[in-house]
Amino acid sequence: MSRNIEQSPLYRLANPRSVVFFGASNNFVSMGTIMLNSLKVMGFEGAIYPVHPKEETVLGHKAYRTVADLPETPDLAVIVLPTKLVIDVVDQCGQKGVRHAVVCSGGFREVGPEGAELERQLVATAQKWGLRFVGPNCLGVVNTHHKLSTMFHSFQGRPGFVGMASQSGSFVSQMFDYLDDQGLAFSTCFSVGNSANVDLVDCLEYLGQDPNTKVVAMYIESLDRGRRFVEVCRRVSLIKPVVAYYVGGTETGGRAGLSHTGSLAGPDALYDGVFRQCGVTRAASIEEMFDLCAVMGQCPPPRGNRVVIQTHSGGPGAVCADTCGRVGLELPELSAKTVQALAPYIPVTGTVNNPIDLTFSRNPGDYLRVIPEILLTDENTDAVLMYFLSAKGRMIDQEVKLGKSPQQAEREVVEAFDQQSRAIVQAVKERGKTFIGFSFRIHDEEFVQKVRRLGLPIISSPERAAKALAALLGWDKMRKKIQASDLATTRQ
Amino acid sequence: MSRNIEQSPLYRLANPRSVVFFGASNNFVSMGTIMLNSLKVMGFEGAIYPVHPKEETVLGHKAYRTVADLPETPDLAVIVLPTKLVIDVVDQCGQKGVRHAVVCSGGFREVGPEGAELERQLVATAQKWGLRFVGPNCLGVVNTHHKLSTMFHSFQGRPGFVGMASQSGSFVSQMFDYLDDQGLAFSTCFSVGNSANVDLVDCLEYLGQDPNTKVVAMYIESLDRGRRFVEVCRRVSLIKPVVAYYVGGTETGGRAGLSHTGSLAGPDALYDGVFRQCGVTRAASIEEMFDLCAVMGQCPPPRGNRVVIQTHSGGPGAVCADTCGRVGLELPELSAKTVQALAPYIPVTGTVNNPIDLTFSRNPGDYLRVIPEILLTDENTDAVLMYFLSAKGRMIDQEVKLGKSPQQAEREVVEAFDQQSRAIVQAVKERGKTFIGFSFRIHDEEFVQKVRRLGLPIISSPERAAKALAALLGWDKMRKKIQASDLATTRQ
Repeated sequence: MSRNIEQSPLYRLANPRSVVFFGASNNFVSMGTIMLNSLKVMGFEGAIYPVHPKEETVLGHKAYRTVADLPETPDLAVIVLPTKLVIDVVDQCGQKGVRHAVVCSGGFREVGPEGAELERQLVATAQKWGLRFVGPNCLGVVNTHHKLSTMFHSFQGRPGFVGMASQSGSFVSQMFDYLDDQGLAFSTCFSVGNSANVDLVDCLEYLGQDPNTKVVAMYIESLDRGRRFVEVCRRVSLIKPVVAYYVGGTETGGRAGLSHTGSLAGPDALYDGVFRQCGVTRAASIEEMFDLCAVMGQCPPPRGNRVVIQTHSGGPGAVCADTCGRVGLELPELSAKTVQALAPYIPVTGTVNNPIDLTFSRNPGDYLRVIPEILLTDENTDAVLMYFLSAKGRMIDQEVKLGKSPQQAEREVVEAFDQQSRAIVQAVKERGKTFIGFSFRIHDEEFVQKVRRLGLPIISSPERAAKALAALLGWDKMRKKIQASDLATTRQ
Repeated sequence: MSRNIEQSPLYRLANPRSVVFFGASNNFVSMGTIMLNSLKVMGFEGAIYPVHPKEETVLGHKAYRTVADLPETPDLAVIVLPTKLVIDVVDQCGQKGVRHAVVCSGGFREVGPEGAELERQLVATAQKWGLRFVGPNCLGVVNTHHKLSTMFHSFQGRPGFVGMASQSGSFVSQMFDYLDDQGLAFSTCFSVGNSANVDLVDCLEYLGQDPNTKVVAMYIESLDRGRRFVEVCRRVSLIKPVVAYYVGGTETGGRAGLSHTGSLAGPDALYDGVFRQCGVTRAASIEEMFDLCAVMGQCPPPRGNRVVIQTHSGGPGAVCADTCGRVGLELPELSAKTVQALAPYIPVTGTVNNPIDLTFSRNPGDYLRVIPEILLTDENTDAVLMYFLSAKGRMIDQEVKLGKSPQQAEREVVEAFDQQSRAIVQAVKERGKTFIGFSFRIHDEEFVQKVRRLGLPIISSPERAAKALAALLGWDKMRKKIQASDLATTRQ
C-alpha cells in the first residue's frame, strides 16, 4: 500500500482534473447522454470534452471529432460506445496519453466466448499504453468529495464516508436515495463490472488509503485473486472496517452472477472462512451491509458485549433484547449508582431492569437527554441501544391546544429538537461509548434525521441495530487477532 | 368458532356502537386525553361518553360523574385510570350493564406479586358481571373499518387487511406510519397487554372470522393456552395465513418479556415446533412479519417452487436469485415459447437466462407491461419476482429537454404511470399467478405506490421478497398437511 494516496494507480480515476467522454450526444434518451448529464448535475469542476463524430456541441460543451483533437491530455476517458468501437477508442486514448478510463460498454466476457476474446484484446490494448481502466460492463466511478460521477443516476446529496467496490453498478447508482434515507452517503465508489483491468482488490486497496472513507462496503459475485484479497483485507481491516456481501454461494446466485459479469463463484463456506480470516464482516443482505456501514463507520467499538437498552415501549425493547441474546450480546443489571441516578425519572409503571422501559414520560427532555447521559456513564455496560420515537405532529398539536399559534408551536418544537439532538450527540461523543439508536419511523421523523445528520447512527429496526452492534464488536475482535498474528510473525 | 362473527364474544369490543371513556380530561398531555383524542381523530361515529369527577365537558363531549349517570348502556368501556381506581370502575360498569372493556392502566401482574393479586381481583370482578376485557397494561383495540381506535397514536389512513393480536401495544400503535409506508394498513388489532381476560388465542379466533382480515399477524412474548392455541391456529390457518413473531426464546428476550407483560416465555425450539404443527409461519423480525403479511394477504400461493426473476439491473437480480437458492426456490430455464416471445424486447446486452436481465430498455412499456405479461404465461415457472425502479424525475426531465413544458411533462409521466400500473395489476389478476415486486426505493417512487395501492405487493428488497415468496409456498404446504391429517382423523 503506497503511503501517499496520490501515488495510487487509481488516484486519477477517482480524482480526474479533466474527462473525455465518448458516447454522449444531444439525444436525451441515450445511455451515454444520461451519464454525461449525471456528471454535470453532480457539479464536476474539471474540463469536460465530449467526442462526437458529427455534433458541434454536446450538452453545451464543444465536441471534438477524435480524442487526438483535444487541446490537452485528459486525466480520464469515459467510454459508453457500442462494443465494436471500444478497443479502437482505447487505443486512440492511449496514444493521446490518457492513462485512466471507465469502459461502461457491455458485450464482453459476460456474453460468451466471442466477447471473452474481445475482452482479451481490450486488456492488451490498454496494457500497451499503461492505461488502467474500470470495466468493461460497468457504471464507473463516483467520488462525492470530488463532484465526480459517471453513473446512470445522478447524485445530488452531501458527501459521505461509505466507500464501495461493487461488481454491480446498481448497488452504487441506484442506492443514492436509499442511503440518503438512511442518513448515509458514499465517499468514493467503483462499479468494477467484468474487472478486466481494475478489480475489487485494487479498489479495496485504494479505499483503504482514502481519508474520506471510514468504512468499505463490497458487493462480490466472485473473487479471482483470493490470496491478494486476503493480504489487502488484513491490512485495510486493521485501520477501517470492511463489510462484504457475497452473492454466488448458491447455485442460483452463482448462475445469475455468471450472466451478469461472467463471474465464476465459489462455495459459500469457503468465502465465509476467507472473510473471517482477513477481518471482513459478512453481511446477509444489502440492507444489512449499509446498516453495518452506518454503525461501523461512525461508532467506536465497545469494550465488551454488555449492553443497556433504553426504551419507552415494551415491545421494541423486548425485541431488541431478544436479538441481543441471539447475537451474543448480554444485558447485565445496571450498577447501583446508575439505578439510583435513574430513579427520579422512571414513572411507577416503568422499570429500571435492563431494558430500561419508561413506558411513558411527560418530559421528552428526560428521555432524550437526562437518561441517556446516565446510561452512558454506567460501569456495568459497554454500549447503549436506544429506541427513538418522537411525534412532531402531536407535540405541535398539544402546544396549539395550549393556546400557541401553529407557527409558534412548530418553531418551538423544532427548536427543542435542535437542542435535544445536539445535546445527545455531544453526550455520546464526550463519553466515547458505543451508542446506536433504532426506530421504525426513519422517514418522517425530523428528530431522527437531525440526530443522524450530527453523526449518530439510528438504524431502521431493533433487530438490525442489535446485529450491527454485534458486528462492530466482532470486527474489533478479528482486528485484534490479526494484530496479534502479525506481531507473532514479525517476532519469528 | 361461531359461524356468525356478531356472535363472537369480542364482536362488540371491536365494533362498539358507543363508548364510555374513563381517564380523559381537557389536559392535553395526559395519556387518557391523548387516547380519547385518537378516537375522535379516527372519526368514530358512535356515541362517546367521558366520565370525569369535575369537568362539565371533556374534549367537547358532555361529561358524566359516574357510568351510572349515562343515558344508555354503552357497548364498550375504555379505562385509562390510576391502578387503584380500576377495579371499582369495572364493577360500576358491570352494574350498568357494560359487557366489554379495554383496561389500559398498568400496575398489575407486570410489576410483581402485589400487582398480580390486584389482577386476580380485577378478573373476578369482571367475571361476576360476564364482562370481557382486553388488558390490563395495554393500548386496546383498533378497527379501521369501524373507525375505532383506543391507541396512543392516531390512525388516519385507509382501512386495510392486516389483522393483529399483539402482546405489545407499540407494534400496533407505533406501526401505523410504517405500514402506510409499506402500502399496508391494519383491519382490526388487539393489544392484549397482560391478557388477564382476553388473550391472543381469543383474538386469533375473532380475526379468523373477521371478513376484513386477510392475514393475521401475532406478536408473542408467551403463550398460556398452548393446546387451545394449536386448535385455533389449525382451523384459522386453513382459511387465512397466520404469521407470528415470537420474542422470548432467548434468556435476554424472555427476561424483557417478563418485565413488559409479566409473561413467562418458553424455549425457542418448542415454539418453532408448535408453530409448524399448526400452520403458523414464524417471522424472524417485525419487518419480516409485515413483509409476509403484504405477500400472504394479497397473493395466491404458487403451484410450486419455480420462479422467474425479471430485472433490468444485474445486481438486484443476482441477489434475488441467490436468496431464492437459500430458501428453496428454483430458477428453471423458461419454456422455448417464452424465450421466443421475449426475444424482440431483449437488447443485445441483456439475457433471457433466468433472471431475465434487460440491462437497459428504451421503452418503459416493454419492461412494465409486455415482458411481465409474457412471463406470467410461462409454463415452466410458478411465480414472478420483478424489480421495480422508475425514475420519475429523470423521465420528466427528458420530456422537458425534448421541448415539453414541465407541467405537461409531469402530466404525461403520471398518466403513463397510471396506465402502466393498471395494466400490470390487471395482467397479474387475470393470470392468477403469484407475482411479487421488489424495490429499494419504496418511499419516493410514485409508480411503486400506485402499483401497491392497486393490490400488488412490492417488498423493500430482493432478499425480503424471495423470503416472503418462500413463506407463502410454505404456508400452502402446511395447510395441505393439516387438511390431509384432519381428513384422516375424520375417516378413522
